[in-house]
Amino acid sequence: MSKLLILGTVAFDAIETPFGKTDKILGGAATYISLAASHFDVNAAIISVVGGDFPKEFLTKLEAKKIDTSGIEIIEEGKTFFWSGKYHNDLNVRDTLTTDLNVLADFKPKIPAHLTNPDFLMLGNLHPSVQMTAIKQIPKRPKLVALDTMNFWMDNTWDELMEVLKKVDVITINDEEARQLSGEYSLLKAADKIHKMGPRYVIIKKGEHGALLFENGNAFFAPALPLEEVFDPTGAGDTFAGGFIGHMASTHDLSFENMKRAIIAGSNLASFCVEKFGTERMMNLTKDDIQERLQEFKVLTQFDIELT
Amino acid sequence: MSKLLILGTVAFDAIETPFGKTDKILGGAATYISLAASHFDVNAAIISVVGGDFPKEFLTKLEAKKIDTSGIEIIEEGKTFFWSGKYHNDLNVRDTLTTDLNVLADFKPKIPAHLTNPDFLMLGNLHPSVQMTAIKQIPKRPKLVALDTMNFWMDNTWDELMEVLKKVDVITINDEEARQLSGEYSLLKAADKIHKMGPRYVIIKKGEHGALLFENGNAFFAPALPLEEVFDPTGAGDTFAGGFIGHMASTHDLSFENMKRAIIAGSNLASFCVEKFGTERMMNLTKDDIQERLQEFKVLTQFDIELT
Repeated sequence: MSKLLILGTVAFDAIETPFGKTDKILGGAATYISLAASHFDVNAAIISVVGGDFPKEFLTKLEAKKIDTSGIEIIEEGKTFFWSGKYHNDLNVRDTLTTDLNVLADFKPKIPAHLTNPDFLMLGNLHPSVQMTAIKQIPKRPKLVALDTMNFWMDNTWDELMEVLKKVDVITINDEEARQLSGEYSLLKAADKIHKMGPRYVIIKKGEHGALLFENGNAFFAPALPLEEVFDPTGAGDTFAGGFIGHMASTHDLSFENMKRAIIAGSNLASFCVEKFGTERMMNLTKDDIQERLQEFKVLTQFDIELT
Repeated sequence: MSKLLILGTVAFDAIETPFGKTDKILGGAATYISLAASHFDVNAAIISVVGGDFPKEFLTKLEAKKIDTSGIEIIEEGKTFFWSGKYHNDLNVRDTLTTDLNVLADFKPKIPAHLTNPDFLMLGNLHPSVQMTAIKQIPKRPKLVALDTMNFWMDNTWDELMEVLKKVDVITINDEEARQLSGEYSLLKAADKIHKMGPRYVIIKKGEHGALLFENGNAFFAPALPLEEVFDPTGAGDTFAGGFIGHMASTHDLSFENMKRAIIAGSNLASFCVEKFGTERMMNLTKDDIQERLQEFKVLTQFDIELT
């Protein structure tokens, strides 16, 4: 079984949407990525850091999904990274209310010896130097390295971002970020420029408008499933990434055709994530739920047209 | 061959985009709809009105595409409807600079006798009472009646809009308008409510984010093709509608599966429309261009995933 290593935050989130609000609940990119990846035949492990205030029960929940949490450093005298945000009525826009970095401020990933030879590596959204520190502790290049990043790092740590992009195969960003990173409005042209920065595969996440995959000259699009209820978009992008890398790691097939399936798998899992607050829906998701919705994706996108 | 009747504006447009600007060029919903529909085996005819200032050469251009223009009333002493607009840098937002209704202000469609028995009817975006006036002149209900409308009529002529919606099978609107019309944020729920207003089929146009088709319980999504250059979005929505109704009229098959193909056909034609100013690209589009791009749509959307 493939070894999948996930670098990213494990955090407390407090979320407010038009439909309600939560106290501090389990959150963080690595949490969502690993929960999504846990639905595939992979050995997933997290590299992260939390404070002494982080409940053991949250770690137990991840372990119950067969996620290896031994790489989550616990700094007893520190506090766990905390983010809170409020979504507007249309759920496409959110305001960040609090970002308490806490133990994340001095995070230097230390990958335990038994986790330094992953087959697949997913670098969640973090300072690009922190992502690079993780890459450097892995002596043998993984089959596939995927990286998530955001506009903040483009604004503030451009050079470090360019360095780490040279080391990755797949980048996941949203459409605005793709335009910022490339200086191109056309996403097709943006992807071409980003390819030249390193990543062979460019995945552009458009939230409720779906996701695009570009590889030199090839493009594939997966819509978001139209849902009755979207409750809380938090974690949807990370869940998408986790489904993508989970599918890739469980199949070992790096063809474009298989990457299409991975994009659909990611979109499928993300469609569940938004149905409840935080990780709630992901925690009780079954294989049958996933299969049933995969069928809905087929109906939604597949057509038969004659080429004359 | 099916008879397709198109009610809508034939107009002058003056367009400014970040890539250039035009003087008064040929525009109007019925123009774009008919040009798109002309690529299918249908007898398309326009019902519209223009002023004495409308160049005969514009009519000749439409007639060269085998579009029947005998239903375009010419009011010699009047001036043709004129619209001018300016697109912002991202092309998703535009400001209307001028709307001179001119002869459109008193437009009362008069359908010539030889055009009163269409098999398919497309009602372009106009005052709902004007759309209703056209419907009332057609004694035998067409196989399919499609209607385009916009937020302006929802704000100002709600009751008239509700009346005409009872008479149509297909409505095409954008996502914001679907939310306004239904009072629902979820597009799935919005479509359900709009079904109850009359249209069995709800098509939601999302511009660069594609288009969704809903029929009770069924959903289908077509992406917009990622393009190297988007030059001028004017007319893309009408071109989409024209491709949709053109495909439907040429195939006579009202199944959901065939409607999916019509959505793809519309998306395909719209992808050309935006590549040049105004109708320029649509005027010289070939069958080979269309077929080639249809193949790109297949590559972009079709995947093969095992259901286990």
